[in-house]
Amino acid sequence: MRTIEWDHDRDCVRMVDQTRLPERYTDYHAETVADLVESIEMLRVRGAPALGAAGAYGVALAAREATREEEGVTADADDYAERVRELAERVADARPTAVNLRSEVEAALAVVDGAATPAEARERSLDHAEAVADEDVRRNRRIGEHGAELLADGDTVLTHCNAGALATVDWGTALGIVYSAREAETEVSVLAPETRPLNQGSRITATELREADVDVTVLPDSAAGLAMAEGRVDAVVVGADRVTLSGGGPDGDEAVVFNKIGTYEHAVLADRHDVPFVVAAPTATVDAERSADDVEIERRDPDELREIYGTQNAPADVPVYNPAFDRTPAHLVDHLVTERGVFEPPLDRAALFGESPPTAE
Amino acid sequence: MRTIEWDHDRDCVRMVDQTRLPERYTDYHAETVADLVESIEMLRVRGAPALGAAGAYGVALAAREATREEEGVTADADDYAERVRELAERVADARPTAVNLRSEVEAALAVVDGAATPAEARERSLDHAEAVADEDVRRNRRIGEHGAELLADGDTVLTHCNAGALATVDWGTALGIVYSAREAETEVSVLAPETRPLNQGSRITATELREADVDVTVLPDSAAGLAMAEGRVDAVVVGADRVTLSGGGPDGDEAVVFNKIGTYEHAVLADRHDVPFVVAAPTATVDAERSADDVEIERRDPDELREIYGTQNAPADVPVYNPAFDRTPAHLVDHLVTERGVFEPPLDRAALFGESPPTAE
Repeated sequence: MRTIEWDHDRDCVRMVDQTRLPERYTDYHAETVADLVESIEMLRVRGAPALGAAGAYGVALAAREATREEEGVTADADDYAERVRELAERVADARPTAVNLRSEVEAALAVVDGAATPAEARERSLDHAEAVADEDVRRNRRIGEHGAELLADGDTVLTHCNAGALATVDWGTALGIVYSAREAETEVSVLAPETRPLNQGSRITATELREADVDVTVLPDSAAGLAMAEGRVDAVVVGADRVTLSGGGPDGDEAVVFNKIGTYEHAVLADRHDVPFVVAAPTATVDAERSADDVEIERRDPDELREIYGTQNAPADVPVYNPAFDRTPAHLVDHLVTERGVFEPPLDRAALFGESPPTAE
Repeated sequence: MRTIEWDHDRDCVRMVDQTRLPERYTDYHAETVADLVESIEMLRVRGAPALGAAGAYGVALAAREATREEEGVTADADDYAERVRELAERVADARPTAVNLRSEVEAALAVVDGAATPAEARERSLDHAEAVADEDVRRNRRIGEHGAELLADGDTVLTHCNAGALATVDWGTALGIVYSAREAETEVSVLAPETRPLNQGSRITATELREADVDVTVLPDSAAGLAMAEGRVDAVVVGADRVTLSGGGPDGDEAVVFNKIGTYEHAVLADRHDVPFVVAAPTATVDAERSADDVEIERRDPDELREIYGTQNAPADVPVYNPAFDRTPAHLVDHLVTERGVFEPPLDRAALFGESPPTAE
């Protein structure tokens, strides 16, 4: 089942309601742009690739809503395009830091702009959104197939946060490698660190893997080191929010992986225990323009630590250090897996972007 | 204010009620052995040294309760000693894995056994308990004074869990170093990792340090690595549950520090970032008999991860890896601070136990 898709019977967006996890694995239907905006804001749908698809589907919703009679909008072409744009902007603004969300809204609006009539805009925007979603799944399956070759039957993989089907349209990146391995009859087990403070590992990764009948064990983030020391981990496989190609290392010319806080600790411990450290991410995650030095690490709300599920967990006004991401330098990364193949550091711009042949395509 | 002490006005045990943290810093009075047993069971009082004192005070309570008329007990000497022992056993059994609790109950019972009359037993058992408590504070102050010499004005110390005043009768071990530094006009700030899954860092350490007006910042356990990479940590200072002198390293002859899960990760990261790693613990924590290989790491209840404060945090029946402690080999430890001085690895039995002069006494 896809994380997000068009429900053709109900002519609206269907998604897995991730706010109900881990208790319930249920659907939510966004019938209007307002429903979708609320869903993005309250994290019913999350993860950069899934939000990209949500942006494209949001424009398809907007193209329908802009012609509904109850909205009192005429079918005049200029007014119509303006109305679609206004609705689509609400979707793009629902999570300001989600780059994929805005870029996919804008790509979809260009499709609407190219349509001659509202009817054509409705049809083309939906076709476009379906193509965006399908492409995400295809790309993830390629990442999975390339990465699966790094695993052996019986391996235990330590992941972090949720870089799974539920962060994408389907299949996932880090967990896509696990699913592809299984398709190739390489059975692997997964260790899912809780991933404080939002607990995506215990809430989302563990739920997703159990739905898929993959053997999964939850652990505190701080127990990964002991698990490695005890020989319980054969590979660490994580996703990435962004990969820069410069700014790391003493000379500033090393690639750096930005991912959920805690990733760097797993990388240092994997290095110490000779456990392969694998990053799975689409090429679109590679930021060839910016240096790591120019990427600011978001500091999240202190209340994420001061309270858990509404119960006080620290003094009410205590200062909190709550960075969203950390930086893992490329020399700690054994393999970067993209849809184009498996790459080893130093991460070469030409190879990653296709100016030279990747490992396996 | 002491964590646990005798209230001479009310002739009972007063303690800080740690179940009320971080919301309230309030007292609880244990008037009876049953009150004290309940307090130990529900972690109103916790930490090995504090539990040792609780055991001694428990025998003083038992010596009073055994002569109360409403209990219907005669003052016959044999019956009396038997009654005290029965009550004291309940205290010793309140937390089966707390070695200090049982050993201090037994030491206090020997004092009762040596008394000629119930009146003498009541007096001697209380004097003994006060001496046990005073000795803990004296020992911690010595640890603090030795350790404070490792810190410089303006330093930021990363600790873990709670090895503070609230784990002892007063002053603490790891945090005792912080308090002693301040007494010597060396102001330090503290980073307190949350310490999943029971959150002693955010709940107890942060509250204790704020009560003492020490600058403290809470962080997720998984953010310690980024904090070190960003140069925010000048020293890591932690307590220890047990220090073995053999069983670590490839030859099995290296010392090993057993402490709260997550300690090992901090040690590996400190090593990578050239941050001094300091362990503060009384000599009584050093187990010269057993090899690290013979120390079993307690696996705690999976529900500690599956639920937080009563809210579901993972699939209800998901397997959980929840070890209470981890192992930090001595080559990652820069200094072990005991009441006898500051020691560097390899940790020498003769030095630690006083057959040769320690660094600074």
